[in-house]
Parts: sequence; structure tokens; C-alpha cells
Amino acid sequence: MERVSLKTSRRKEWVDITDLLGEAVARLDLSAGAALVFVPHTTAGVTVNEGADPAVAEDLEGVLCRLVPAAGPYRHAEGNSDAHAQTLLAGPSLLLPVEGGRVRLGTWQRVFFCEFDGPRAREVWVQALPLRE
Amino acid sequence: MERVSLKTSRRKEWVDITDLLGEAVARLDLSAGAALVFVPHTTAGVTVNEGADPAVAEDLEGVLCRLVPAAGPYRHAEGNSDAHAQTLLAGPSLLLPVEGGRVRLGTWQRVFFCEFDGPRAREVWVQALPLRE
Amino acid sequence: MERVSLKTSRRKEWVDITDLLGEAVARLDLSAGAALVFVPHTTAGVTVNEGADPAVAEDLEGVLCRLVPAAGPYRHAEGNSDAHAQTLLAGPSLLLPVEGGRVRLGTWQRVFFCEFDGPRAREVWVQALPLRE
Repeated sequence: MERVSLKTSRRKEWVDITDLLGEAVARLDLSAGAALVFVPHTTAGVTVNEGADPAVAEDLEGVLCRLVPAAGPYRHAEGNSDAHAQTLLAGPSLLLPVEGGRVRLGTWQRVFFCEFDGPRAREVWVQALPLRE
Repeated sequence: MERVSLKTSRRKEWVDITDLLGEAVARLDLSAGAALVFVPHTTAGVTVNEGADPAVAEDLEGVLCRLVPAAGPYRHAEGNSDAHAQTLLAGPSLLLPVEGGRVRLGTWQRVFFCEFDGPRAREVWVQALPLRE
Repeated sequence: MERVSLKTSRRKEWVDITDLLGEAVARLDLSAGAALVFVPHTTAGVTVNEGADPAVAEDLEGVLCRLVPAAGPYRHAEGNSDAHAQTLLAGPSLLLPVEGGRVRLGTWQRVFFCEFDGPRAREVWVQALPLRE
């Protein structure tokens, strides 16, 4: 399993990690199957969405902030319950198809690491799962 | 990997693709393991939910439209930010258990392709991942 | 595939199933790869989030109840459309990384079975997917 490090620089931030994941899959030497992308944090998620227009990620961040406002009311006393709930909605993991040694995505798709409680040093774990042989 | 085509006929539409997926898994000749169902689009998702009463899918579509209204405000200028955000909430992929050559679902479960910005010609990708042998 | 049984005791309830899943993965004799966790119900989901402070799960349950109120309006006549929609948002399945025969999670992560329409007798299915060898 590959453990990829990244740093975020704002409290809420969508980071395009498509190329990082492609490099991890190459190191794992997976020719065909799927790559599990797993975020080992409880205030950050991962998803696939449009990457051509950066306004899309801004809109998605805005939707999650409107759906789960920072103000609460919440019981958890650390002041980041919005981040835990946004992680729930975005999801903590993703499975990407791999063919010909490369992650296969649709034309407009990019993979985003969704920081909900940064800035922080973060990890993404990548595990190779092979195709039936 | 199987690439299954389908056509949607409305802007928002939940299509039961359980049988289509079952046929794809049969073509992939997977006896046991899991089938990755991946939507290579950024304005459509996939999920599992109740299929016996069609009113459930209508309710789910209604919930997503109330949570993410078409009106915004959004920055993305194409007028479909609601669809991108509904894709985020529904999720872009799914992993289904396979046993005895067949996708295994609970009694009331069906797999739905969730169109959020149709009508369009769409694809669903299906990748076979084998059980430990 | 392992079929793990559990019982819930309230209508809405987050049950920490991390240890149950660890035992299932041990029985499946999976040394490295990933474990598919699949909920075969349409009114319950599964997710990963913080388990150290029980207030986090309470907050997440509260967020889902505010986002999808029981009152509706809904078409489905069984009175549990909120539970179907909360299942959509939490997600019906999860893929967890496995290394050294153990499920690998981040420091603060625990796996939660999310009951949205209990109390009921429930199942969680666990399927082993091996690492590339």
C-alpha cells in the first residue's frame, strides 16, 4: 500500500490529486483492476468531479458549507463538527478503475482530496486490487 | 472492463440498472469477488436503494433537489452546478458483492443510475475484482 | 463472504462495528488487500468517522436528521423516506484497506453501522479482495 503525503493551506480546500494517484498506481505496478483511495482522517474526504473549471470545486465546497454550517448546534466540543459531517457527505474512500497500467477516468473527471478542517499535513492511502486473471 | 451504454430521457432521472449490471458481470465471467460500478461522468451518480416502490426513487430525487436547488448561487457558468453537487452526494461509484457468478443484493435493493443533468447518452463502467483464492 | 448479524435498539443509531469487522476479516484469512463492507438494507448505511468522542456520531446523526426531516413531504407511504434518503447520503458500502491481516484505519477512525429505521435485526456483508500478488 502506498501512503501519499500532501499539505493543505486553508480550512476548506479541494486539492486535485489525480496526478499524485497516477504516480502511486504506477509505483504499485498495477496493470489492470482497481485502485482503492482511502483517506485515513475524519475531517477530510475524497471524491471525483469536474476539474476543467475550478469554479465547480468552489461550488461544491459552497454547497457543503451551506448544508452543514460551522455554527451548528453541535455537541462535539472541538468546533469542527461541520468538518466531520462534510466528510460523511463526501465520503472517506473511492475505488478507481485501472486499465493498461493507468487510472481510467471520464473526460471531465478529476480526483479531489477534500480538506474540511485544514490547514494540515495529510495522507492518502492507495491500495492495488487486481483484475480477475 | 465492460462499458455499458444507456440513454436517459429527463433532466433528473433514476434508472434501475440492476439487470444491465448483472449481464455485465456475467460477461466478465466473475464467479466470486466484487464488481466495481463506476460512472465516468461528473453530473450523474450511482447508488443502491429500494426498488420495489418507485415512489422511493422519486422521494430521493426530491430530497437531492431540495438539498441542492438549481437556482444556486453558483460560480460555474454552465447552469448545472446542482447536478455536480448531487453527484457528490450520491457518489460516483459503487462496489457490489458477487457470489456464485451473481451480484448479491439485499431483498429490497436495486442499483440506480442517477441522472442529474440529462437527457444524455451515458456510460457505466464495470470492472471485475476477484475473491481471494 | 461473511455475513455478520447485529441488532439495533433505536430508530436512529450509530453502532461502532470496527471490532466485528476485524473479526470477520480474520475469519476470511485475508492478509493484504481490501475488505468490502456492504449493507444489504435500504434504510441503513455504513461510514468511517471519529470514534473517540461519542458526541461526533451524535452530531452526524443530528446533521442527517436536519438535512432529511422525517416529516417530508414524501410519496412513499411507509413513513420511512427519511431513512432511505439518509442511506443515500451516508452510502451503502465501504472499502477498507487491509495489511498484515488487519484492517488499517487512521488514528481516530472507527467504522459505524448507521441505523436509520430501527430497531431491527440487521446484517453486514464482508467480502475479501486480495492485493496484487
